[in-house]
Amino acid sequence: MKTQVAIIGGGPAGLLLSQLLHLSGIDSVVLERRSRDYVLGRIRAGVLESGSVKVLTEAGVGDRLAAEGQPHDGVEFSWHDERLRIDLAALTGTTVTVYGQTEVTRDLYAALDARGAEVIHEAEVLRIEGVETDAPVVVYRQNGAEHRLEARFVAGCDGFHGPSRKAMPDGVRQEFERAYPFGWLGLLSKTPPAAPELIYAAHERGFALCSMRSDEVSRYYVQVPVEEKVEDWTPDRFWDELRRRIPADVADGMVTEGEVLEMSVAPLRSFVSEPMRHGSLFLAGDAAHIVPPTGAKGLNLAVSDVYYLHRALDRFFNTGAADGIDSYSETALARVWKSERFSWSLTQMMHDFPQLGPFEKRMQKAEFDDLVRSETARKGLAENYIGLPF
Amino acid sequence: MKTQVAIIGGGPAGLLLSQLLHLSGIDSVVLERRSRDYVLGRIRAGVLESGSVKVLTEAGVGDRLAAEGQPHDGVEFSWHDERLRIDLAALTGTTVTVYGQTEVTRDLYAALDARGAEVIHEAEVLRIEGVETDAPVVVYRQNGAEHRLEARFVAGCDGFHGPSRKAMPDGVRQEFERAYPFGWLGLLSKTPPAAPELIYAAHERGFALCSMRSDEVSRYYVQVPVEEKVEDWTPDRFWDELRRRIPADVADGMVTEGEVLEMSVAPLRSFVSEPMRHGSLFLAGDAAHIVPPTGAKGLNLAVSDVYYLHRALDRFFNTGAADGIDSYSETALARVWKSERFSWSLTQMMHDFPQLGPFEKRMQKAEFDDLVRSETARKGLAENYIGLPF
Repeated sequence: MKTQVAIIGGGPAGLLLSQLLHLSGIDSVVLERRSRDYVLGRIRAGVLESGSVKVLTEAGVGDRLAAEGQPHDGVEFSWHDERLRIDLAALTGTTVTVYGQTEVTRDLYAALDARGAEVIHEAEVLRIEGVETDAPVVVYRQNGAEHRLEARFVAGCDGFHGPSRKAMPDGVRQEFERAYPFGWLGLLSKTPPAAPELIYAAHERGFALCSMRSDEVSRYYVQVPVEEKVEDWTPDRFWDELRRRIPADVADGMVTEGEVLEMSVAPLRSFVSEPMRHGSLFLAGDAAHIVPPTGAKGLNLAVSDVYYLHRALDRFFNTGAADGIDSYSETALARVWKSERFSWSLTQMMHDFPQLGPFEKRMQKAEFDDLVRSETARKGLAENYIGLPF
Repeated sequence: MKTQVAIIGGGPAGLLLSQLLHLSGIDSVVLERRSRDYVLGRIRAGVLESGSVKVLTEAGVGDRLAAEGQPHDGVEFSWHDERLRIDLAALTGTTVTVYGQTEVTRDLYAALDARGAEVIHEAEVLRIEGVETDAPVVVYRQNGAEHRLEARFVAGCDGFHGPSRKAMPDGVRQEFERAYPFGWLGLLSKTPPAAPELIYAAHERGFALCSMRSDEVSRYYVQVPVEEKVEDWTPDRFWDELRRRIPADVADGMVTEGEVLEMSVAPLRSFVSEPMRHGSLFLAGDAAHIVPPTGAKGLNLAVSDVYYLHRALDRFFNTGAADGIDSYSETALARVWKSERFSWSLTQMMHDFPQLGPFEKRMQKAEFDDLVRSETARKGLAENYIGLPF
């Protein structure tokens, strides 16, 4: 089989890239290791920057997002019972949109289905050949048989554990990583949200987050030690722990009687692999970088990567100019590092780090107090939260 | 001997307090462990916030400061050869003033001399009795003989190593501390400054600072390991190391031929002792808190402590109201923690920490890049640098 762009990974990054390339008249084939049901069953992020909404809309998958996505003009932070609202709209003139990653993926599949796009599921990539040539080949196995997908470029949208990044030679790649000594235990429930806006809650027992997917579905998290097992938690234990960490008035009004749809533990990691292009191979999204979920930058970074990559490929295929693909890595990484900084600094401020001494704990509180005191500090946070320009 | 306020420590905090109390008609006696020549020989900070200038002016010691102090409307940061100017005046509408702490001390001694104020030098405080009563007594030794100074209040302005803080019972005191794994090696020279404004320089070899005391006297620092000995450094070695860390164009224009007036190594420490008042004993300045010198907050915090303490004592002695002295600790500490945060975060961003991994080093650069990119970030820094309101 032959195509212009072989896309490895059928999550939001790969599907969005396929869709944008299609609109530019560029052929692609998407290879996804899992089944479609599996992909759609993954519970992930839920906050879209306005720039992401714009790209999704331009990709033709903005209708349901516009109808069902919830614009939020603020976000809350709390320290025990002290609450601080960051007025995103007043500080930046724009908002974020609550709309689950699962819904984005669903919309993208619908668009691809409508045009009969090539998405090959349960395709395990074995290797990528000829990365340093103009004719790379993705070799994959499906139903026990090996297949070869020939392309002009390969786009690795296959997440942190996927094979694309590893197809870059060791001498080329430089990795930057920080693992945090904790994870997030998440609970998705069919209950109305505890509050109309997200609440990022710092507490000496650990961080907690009150989020939501819709008016009927809530998403909550509590910081847990990194080795924690979800099997050791019942919903009741979760609700009890959550209540202790969030402001009392929020806890008092929180509805917990409702179906628990999912519980899981995710580790927190900061990770960047440079460069994001080698020869005919590009990386986008989690394949190249991971942010801790504090601040909800993961999906949004995938969207901006894909935005830059589509623009570069469009220019290459439709004008013959290679400057876009040559500068892709640098352009994408500049934005990546900014989001890495933001996600890292929010994580530093809001979590209980076992190794911190009393002075450093006071510094965390002082960072929170600085937000309370200073409109400039709140504006700085808001500008990052709503998303830096593409 | 009897007075209203016994002041321990004849540095700028103690002298300024004595002077302000005098203007309010309140008697004080200053006890200083060292000789006046020793005190005036100490080389310390050199950047005054506008709030500090205002207090010094109100204290009647602003004339020479106004004539000889250099207003700076900007401050520079650099990362290797990349330079970033923070336009303090444009971002905040105000400036800082370069004027050495030694000069402030000299002006205060002149004012105290003019009114024949009681400053007892080479007086070693042995103990403070009756801290929890209304009649505390400072017992000190001078020329081999013990003396008793009776007072209504005791103000501990005797620095980090002085006896005042330790006169608060252990159960009362809570200390927060962070020692950094490096110090600053400083050089004071009779040379024109390398640049018209201060330059805080980050470099993989370590931090450096180009500062000045006047048009003819420069003050430079390089980060060194905490165990470094000044004896291992010659001026030539210092200049070589400094040149490697600052932007090449600054290094090229730097004049190093001139008398070296002083070289010394100072450790970096963050430290806060709470509360700042117990019974009849108050702490002000370094006696209660230390900041790393990055950002030049130490002397300015001493001035704001003394401003609050004078206001409280003035109210007590002249109206009988105790609310000022009751709230002194809380009021002063609120500002202290903000400056601790700022000094700590600038130190974190600009220094080479041996324990940082590649990801964390990129986060330091990302913080610098955030300042380059974002006017909001620059404004946040500028607001702290010029000094938060008293």
